[in-house]
This record gives sequence, structure tokens and C-alpha cells, in this order.
Amino acid sequence: MKLIAPQDVRRIALLGAGTIGSGWAVHYLARGMTLTLYDPASDAEQRVRAFIAKAWPTMCRLGLSAGADPDAFRIAPDPIEAVRDADFVQESGPERTDLKRDLYRRVDEALPPGVVVASSTSGLPMTALQADLPGAARYVTGHPVNPPHLIPLVEVVGGSATAPEVIEWALAFYRAQGKRAIHIRKEVPGMLVNRLQVALWREAVHAVADGIASVEDVDAAVVHALGLRWALIGPHLTIHLAGGPGGMRRHLEHLGPSIEDWWQDLGAPKLEPQVNEKLIEGIEAETAGRSYDDLVAERDALLVEVLQTLKQARGAS
Amino acid sequence: MKLIAPQDVRRIALLGAGTIGSGWAVHYLARGMTLTLYDPASDAEQRVRAFIAKAWPTMCRLGLSAGADPDAFRIAPDPIEAVRDADFVQESGPERTDLKRDLYRRVDEALPPGVVVASSTSGLPMTALQADLPGAARYVTGHPVNPPHLIPLVEVVGGSATAPEVIEWALAFYRAQGKRAIHIRKEVPGMLVNRLQVALWREAVHAVADGIASVEDVDAAVVHALGLRWALIGPHLTIHLAGGPGGMRRHLEHLGPSIEDWWQDLGAPKLEPQVNEKLIEGIEAETAGRSYDDLVAERDALLVEVLQTLKQARGAS
Repeated sequence: MKLIAPQDVRRIALLGAGTIGSGWAVHYLARGMTLTLYDPASDAEQRVRAFIAKAWPTMCRLGLSAGADPDAFRIAPDPIEAVRDADFVQESGPERTDLKRDLYRRVDEALPPGVVVASSTSGLPMTALQADLPGAARYVTGHPVNPPHLIPLVEVVGGSATAPEVIEWALAFYRAQGKRAIHIRKEVPGMLVNRLQVALWREAVHAVADGIASVEDVDAAVVHALGLRWALIGPHLTIHLAGGPGGMRRHLEHLGPSIEDWWQDLGAPKLEPQVNEKLIEGIEAETAGRSYDDLVAERDALLVEVLQTLKQARGAS
Repeated sequence: MKLIAPQDVRRIALLGAGTIGSGWAVHYLARGMTLTLYDPASDAEQRVRAFIAKAWPTMCRLGLSAGADPDAFRIAPDPIEAVRDADFVQESGPERTDLKRDLYRRVDEALPPGVVVASSTSGLPMTALQADLPGAARYVTGHPVNPPHLIPLVEVVGGSATAPEVIEWALAFYRAQGKRAIHIRKEVPGMLVNRLQVALWREAVHAVADGIASVEDVDAAVVHALGLRWALIGPHLTIHLAGGPGGMRRHLEHLGPSIEDWWQDLGAPKLEPQVNEKLIEGIEAETAGRSYDDLVAERDALLVEVLQTLKQARGAS
């Protein structure tokens, strides 16, 4: 299969312009791309414009690529028109297999040769989405983490019919677009990010259910200790450094058996009414009447500061 | 029991001046405290001075309290002499029950009235450490996260003989010292921070053992996505906000059953030779020959920048 060179992509089609699609729009515009958007909602254009206008100052602060233009997009009346001139397609439609399959069937024949289609799906296996498509080999999952214009990670997963070179292409393309793309080698529920997230949350729920600590104190343990480190080094490198200069090998030799004992002692809570009430009461105590919008705005403002700091510090090191 | 007011503490005795004790020394000196240190090692004073000299510029950058003086400490020839005039004692000796019990027996009678002794132990239950001491009620665990002068969190846990007011006192004292102190209400293995850490690592190991992703890609998933959020909001608040304006309650109602299914699907790896080799090879690929000292120095430099950024951003919000 002859694919366009990843670094030569200039025109991107976005299918679906909800929260994820709009986030992608902001990201690609900041990278200097030209976009064509399709979304069946009648107010899609208005929502996308408002989303871009709100996010653009943040992108200016984080740094724009040459030629970045917040207006470099047009709305297409149908998906076929959207993909016709595209070098790459990012699909962010509703999380329903039937709707995504319908959409793919409509665009498949209209796709220019050598163009890859990536799905933002967080939970539907690509093997099911691409089944029976003549162009199946060109479809791959490229799952961003919300919000796509701020969080660098993208999970790339192939379905059973995805060509290996399409997976390689997607990894190279996202990296060329400033993303940190990782390869998920198996279609497992939750891919990697969501599996790790629910693994931590399980023990966080257990701590509350078992009376070890309050909801607020569990969150504090992450924000004021673990999360500070995990923003800088991952769980494996943490273990490698915790072992001292002997690293991972020494750590596994000396502490492997006791870590296995700890694993045995971890909780397996059930989300039953009594536990749920503890979680709800706990989060109400922690958030103390603050609104959803207020909490999200604070988180995103802090996130931009941390991203900017890490970018400068890593660039300098 | 009549205890000194937490905010009136000025003189602190540190028993044990290894990595953790030295970190505490830096922290308390930066808060303007006067210290007396005891450590049986013959080169303890030299090591502590070197540690303080190296860390002090960082503390200056993060902000010193009034009266902070890197030389405001003296070395005591024995533990009794160290605690004699103290308002508070932080013990950071070796992680051995017999050694800590011996030390406590030696100082117990010499402790001024109303003085609390906190142990930095990460794994030994206070109930065992304080057993049979006449002053048992005044002993409590105050477990920092390494390095204690940078990571804000302290886990406070009482043993069965710890007076409830001593637990309250320790929480108030650490908060007065600029720490984020949380109350661990049960003596469970790993308290909270280490339980959460090994819970995440278990799934991180499973991902490698099961061939879902490489060691490097697992670390990237945390550093470039999850950790960025966890440095800002904890796992419970993450779920609360992921549910949209309906928050935790709505999330549990709508997604509780599917989260329980995901929990069922999480891995339970064994640290057997084949898995260990994958982890060791993976971390070698990720670190690409970089030394322990180099990696730690980079992590700590980034940590200071992130701490400073969050302090300024939170102070401003």
C-alpha cells in the first residue's frame, strides 16, 4: 500500500465535531493544518467556532506551528465531500458501532488513495468497525485523551484487518503532529490509559469502602505525592529509580516477593449502594459546593501552566 | 494529655539522619525551626551538611519561612541529649522494629512532657513499635514521601495505644509546617500512598506481561496523560468530573456496572522470571544507558519546576 508521507499531510478531514472532534480541530489548526469538518448536527459550525475561539489563546500560550490559523477550516455538507481532498481522516463520531460502520461505508470509496482513517473511539474494537470494508486495511484507532488539544498522548491500535504499515504510519503521523503516540498491540477493553485509570481507582474506592481514608484524603495522596511524580516519570521508571543504582533488576530481586504480597492485599470493592453513598458524600465534602464548571476551569488552567512548565524545562534540559 | 500547641513548636529533634532524616532536616530548617540531630553513624554530620548544602538553593527557590537558617542545627552525642529540649521528635531510623523499639525505650523517660514523637516508618505498624512504652500514647506514625523536603504529603497513622488527641495534634502540626497531612484510619500494609502505587504498577506490569504495550509506552501513557491530570486532581475527583455536571452520582449510576466489568478484566500478574526479564529489558530500552544519578537529577529538577508552578498558580487562583 502506498501511503502519503506522514510529514506531508496538510489537509485533514474531521468526521464528527463534538467535544473530541472540536479538540482535534483546535490541535490540528494550531499545528498549521487546513481542515474540513463534517458533523450532522445543525449547530455544529457554531459550536466548533465557539470551542476554537475559547481554546485559541491557550494554544497561543503553548506555542503555534508556522502557518497556524484558527479560521483555516470549512464545514462540509456531507462526509464524502469532507474526505474528498483529505490527506488524513480523523473520525470522532458517536460511540456506536453501527453509526461508525455506516459512516465508514459512506466514505470508503471516496477516500483518496494512500489516505489513512483513524477513529477516536475509546472503547469499540477496530476489528468490528472495519469489518467488510473494501478499504479496511487503511482504518486504525487513534484514541486521544480528553482534551485532545492539551493532553499529548494518543493510543494507536490496529484491528485484525489493519495493515501493519498503517499502524506505523499513524504512530509517525501523530508524532509529526507533536503528539506522544504509543502502540497498543492488542485490542483489550480500555486499551491502556483507561485500564491504568480504573486500576488506580479500584484501590482508591477500596480505601474509602474499607475505612482507610476519606475521599478527600485519597485524592490528596495522589495530588500531593503520587501524581507529582507520575507527571514526570511513569510507574516502571518509578520502580527502577526506587531500587537505587541497582535499578529494576535489584528491586525485583529484593522486593518482588513482598510486592506480590501487597498485590494480594489490594482491595476488590463492589460499587454497591453503601459504597456509592460513601463516595458521593465524600466527593461532596471535598468539592464543598463548587460547581462542575468551576472545577473544570481550575483543572484546565493548572494543566496549561504545568504543560508550559514541563515543555520549557524539558526543552532546556 | 496536655500537648504543646502545634504552631508553637520551634525546636525539633531528629533521630536518624539518613536520606529521610536529612530530607526532614532540610524541610524543617526551611520552615525556620531549630534542630537537634542524632545518628549513630560516624559520618552523619558530614553527610547531613552535604545534603543540606545541596538542597538549600532549591528551598530558597520554593520559598523560605521567616528565620530559616541552614545552619540552625546541632549534632547530639546521644538520643537522650537530642530530645531533652525538643518540642517535637521525628524518628527516621532504620526500618527494623527492634531498633526503633530500643530507641524509643531510651528516649521515652527523657522526653519533655507534652511532646509528640512521630515515626517516619513506611511499613512498621505503630502498634508494635509503641507496645509496652510508658509514654506510648504520645507516639504516632508521620510517614513522609521521599524526598520529604519536596513532596508535600504526610500520612498520619495512630497505633492502638496512640491517644486520639496525638493524632489530631500531628495532623495540625504538619499542616502548620506547610505539609499536606492526611489521616490513615487503619494500620494496613502500605498505608495509602504505597497501596495506590502498587495498584497502578500491578496493571502496568500486566500490560507488559500480556503484550499490550512496551515498558516505555506504559510509562508514556502515565507521564503524558494520566500523571498530568493526577498532579492536579485525584482519582475520585477525576471520576466526579468525568461524569459531567451530574458528577459522581450520575457516573456511578450510568457507568458503575461497566467499571465493575473492567475491574474484572484487570490483570493479576506474577513477578516470575519471564515477566521480570521483560520489565528489565523494557526499562533498559527506555532509559537507554542513562545513569541513575542522571535520571534522578532530571526528575528532581522537573519536580521543583512543577511544584513552583503549582504553588504560584494555586496561590493566584
